[in-house]
Amino acid sequence: MLSTVLVANRGEIALRVVRACREAGIRSVAVYSTADRDSAAVRLADQAVHIGPPPPKASYLNIPAIVEAARATGADAIHPGYGFLSEDPDFAEVCAAHGIVFIGPPPQVMQRLGDKAEARAAMAEAGLPVLPGSSGALSSAAEAAAVAELVGYPVILKAVAGGGGRGMAVVRDPDRLVWAYNETRAHARAVFGDERLYLERYVDDARHVEVQVLCDTHGTALHLGVRDCSVQRRHQKLIEEAPAPGLPHEVRDAMCEAAVRGARAVGYVGAGTFEFVVSPAWEFHLMEINCRLQVEHPVTEMVTGVDLVREQLRIAAGQPLGLSQDDIVVHGVAVECRVNAEDPDREFAPTPGTLDEFVPPGGPFVRIDTHAFPGWTVGPHYDSLLAKAVVWAPDRAEALARADRTLAEFRIGGRGMRTTAGFLRRTLAHPDFRAGVHTTALVDAMTVEAAERRPDTPVVSAEPV
Amino acid sequence: MLSTVLVANRGEIALRVVRACREAGIRSVAVYSTADRDSAAVRLADQAVHIGPPPPKASYLNIPAIVEAARATGADAIHPGYGFLSEDPDFAEVCAAHGIVFIGPPPQVMQRLGDKAEARAAMAEAGLPVLPGSSGALSSAAEAAAVAELVGYPVILKAVAGGGGRGMAVVRDPDRLVWAYNETRAHARAVFGDERLYLERYVDDARHVEVQVLCDTHGTALHLGVRDCSVQRRHQKLIEEAPAPGLPHEVRDAMCEAAVRGARAVGYVGAGTFEFVVSPAWEFHLMEINCRLQVEHPVTEMVTGVDLVREQLRIAAGQPLGLSQDDIVVHGVAVECRVNAEDPDREFAPTPGTLDEFVPPGGPFVRIDTHAFPGWTVGPHYDSLLAKAVVWAPDRAEALARADRTLAEFRIGGRGMRTTAGFLRRTLAHPDFRAGVHTTALVDAMTVEAAERRPDTPVVSAEPV
Repeated sequence: MLSTVLVANRGEIALRVVRACREAGIRSVAVYSTADRDSAAVRLADQAVHIGPPPPKASYLNIPAIVEAARATGADAIHPGYGFLSEDPDFAEVCAAHGIVFIGPPPQVMQRLGDKAEARAAMAEAGLPVLPGSSGALSSAAEAAAVAELVGYPVILKAVAGGGGRGMAVVRDPDRLVWAYNETRAHARAVFGDERLYLERYVDDARHVEVQVLCDTHGTALHLGVRDCSVQRRHQKLIEEAPAPGLPHEVRDAMCEAAVRGARAVGYVGAGTFEFVVSPAWEFHLMEINCRLQVEHPVTEMVTGVDLVREQLRIAAGQPLGLSQDDIVVHGVAVECRVNAEDPDREFAPTPGTLDEFVPPGGPFVRIDTHAFPGWTVGPHYDSLLAKAVVWAPDRAEALARADRTLAEFRIGGRGMRTTAGFLRRTLAHPDFRAGVHTTALVDAMTVEAAERRPDTPVVSAEPV
Repeated sequence: MLSTVLVANRGEIALRVVRACREAGIRSVAVYSTADRDSAAVRLADQAVHIGPPPPKASYLNIPAIVEAARATGADAIHPGYGFLSEDPDFAEVCAAHGIVFIGPPPQVMQRLGDKAEARAAMAEAGLPVLPGSSGALSSAAEAAAVAELVGYPVILKAVAGGGGRGMAVVRDPDRLVWAYNETRAHARAVFGDERLYLERYVDDARHVEVQVLCDTHGTALHLGVRDCSVQRRHQKLIEEAPAPGLPHEVRDAMCEAAVRGARAVGYVGAGTFEFVVSPAWEFHLMEINCRLQVEHPVTEMVTGVDLVREQLRIAAGQPLGLSQDDIVVHGVAVECRVNAEDPDREFAPTPGTLDEFVPPGGPFVRIDTHAFPGWTVGPHYDSLLAKAVVWAPDRAEALARADRTLAEFRIGGRGMRTTAGFLRRTLAHPDFRAGVHTTALVDAMTVEAAERRPDTPVVSAEPV
């Protein structure tokens, strides 16, 4: 077993990993920027090390400082959480060079799957359905235009190094392609330091369905069923659920089988997610593979009873998974709602500030993952996630009622503070969502509907960027 | 379905019922004493009615005020929670007379089972194992002595109207019997207004194991497995778990079958609990039947996925249970720890006061049922329960690790405030508890052990009263 795990992250996910370590009898080390000095993870970890000032580059992306903290505290492994360094193969390499276990797939697997164009090619070779598009990175706007003509509009341009919903643009009009190519390229260069783009056919009225996999170092590769993450605002997920409503069983099974096949094909190790775009006719195509724990992993935990972080720790210690595919049975329905400190009426602009009041909900079949507490300050440097409210029920109608009840209970107060809780409740109540027939267009449509009811407000672009 | 439910209780259980109503689409009405004006249940119910000053007799036991509140708010049913009026057949009668559904068994069933001596007789007749003892109430100390000689010492004297761990005394020495009879009789008169006692053989090194039943008005009677509640301080439960560790399957099955048979024999309706005393040789005998929801019901909910309050509401509306016995499958292990505002170093004396700080734990497979929040005042009038921390895991070792992690996370502060959280963690770590071989004597033994380590402190009597 591992003896000490350093958690190279912050917020609720750092707390999630600290909790798993504590339960597994593993010492945990939190690292923190100056802004997170009083965080819950710092308080609850066995040890905490200051790694720099608030800007991520100086702290949570500061590889030398993190590795030095691991060395100084005798950590034998690092859990990267999600975001930050979680999908950085260079960081995984540096860990390996220092004899520290990186809790994730091997660096060469991350490298290969992190390059979205290369991942596409590898998965196509493994027999997974990928959308028609460019083979590898595009060399020019002219090539992009030629490929787009070939696959047919609409298309989506994506940064090869992209992720987290950033660095992508949908193009419906051939006249806009060159402009979009240049814009997205500049954006990708600025955000990811890699301007390469690739292109695929874009599926309208699509659902986003993903498969959770777990692979150990002994050749076992399992899936833990599917999650629907179609409720997105500009490619960022707001509500996730397991299983995917309405998804025919044979489609689900084919998707899960494809994910396991893809994982095996590249020698995947650890927890990973295969994201698929699903058409109204239930055709599915691979979108991308995430080499890390997802924000929405709790919905899978609630329907399967499997503690995914605990399994990550086991796998990282070289232990075999204590599970077979037959052990994994999905019970009921779980729904996660992301309560962010954002103003839904102002294009979801973050509302940083200090929480004068923070009382989370509770009760039956409710799980709250939050690092917030009264007096905590939501700063401008990091994401605005305040809490994940996750509920379970035997069926979807009860789960939605429970999610609504749970969201209504939050007491969150602070100067200028707004949250997404009310918006999430309206989404839960939307007829399309209730019927389980919603697509990734739902939130944009709701935003437009709301704007149309307020004629003074400019209509927010429904075109995701 | 019911349209409006009045919740005739306070604290976490009032909140539990309000939440269930909200999820079921039923209007909820909270009633509150002056001390509970700012309570969470008042805030979250659809409506709230003041029913009197803080003393329970003037408010939560004030039948006319509660019935008037139900009438004024158009409530068609009353949920009594646990404690207070929950096992009062007169209250159930008054509800019926006013055309209000009492959410519990019919008054005549409550009457019969509430008289512990009569319940004993009825259950013996239905073929359930009862301990040798008096047939009905004792008429004198002399009769008590005669029966005790017949069944053999140790014996336990119990108030016919008793409950909640009060009004009972273990007698090991025949010379103490008359004294104990008179003391317990006086206590029973003072607390229950009914001085009648009965007597049974007392089982040393016993475990307390109980069976949850659900019965509808259409003749369906089901059990939801067992709970072990052996961790008690003077007959009050501190830690409960489901299923009961180490209990042989055939004993569990026989116990569950007996509970269902007993429920059918008396025409039971609603949620109820059959409490058994289990000897080291796994012989079990019925102790009593509780005609209400138990404090510890969440552990059953977590291992079965059944929402017991939701089922109570269904049954009260005259609907059939949507479950068959085969639908009820126990998964994993759930543990509930009661975090009370009490000082374990001072014989668990309540420590009332205002919560300057209250941050509950969270994370995977953790459920927190609490009505507390920062600024809430724990008053002297009611029980000292602050929060129920309930955890689930696939196996008992993981559940205990999770419970410990969860208890360690509570941040509870206030002038003079002490809690049982640390004591509960020491109990979880006790070798007997970890091995699952503990009995109802565990907490008293721990208290004595602790006192022996502090020679200045007088040893607390290990004799439960």
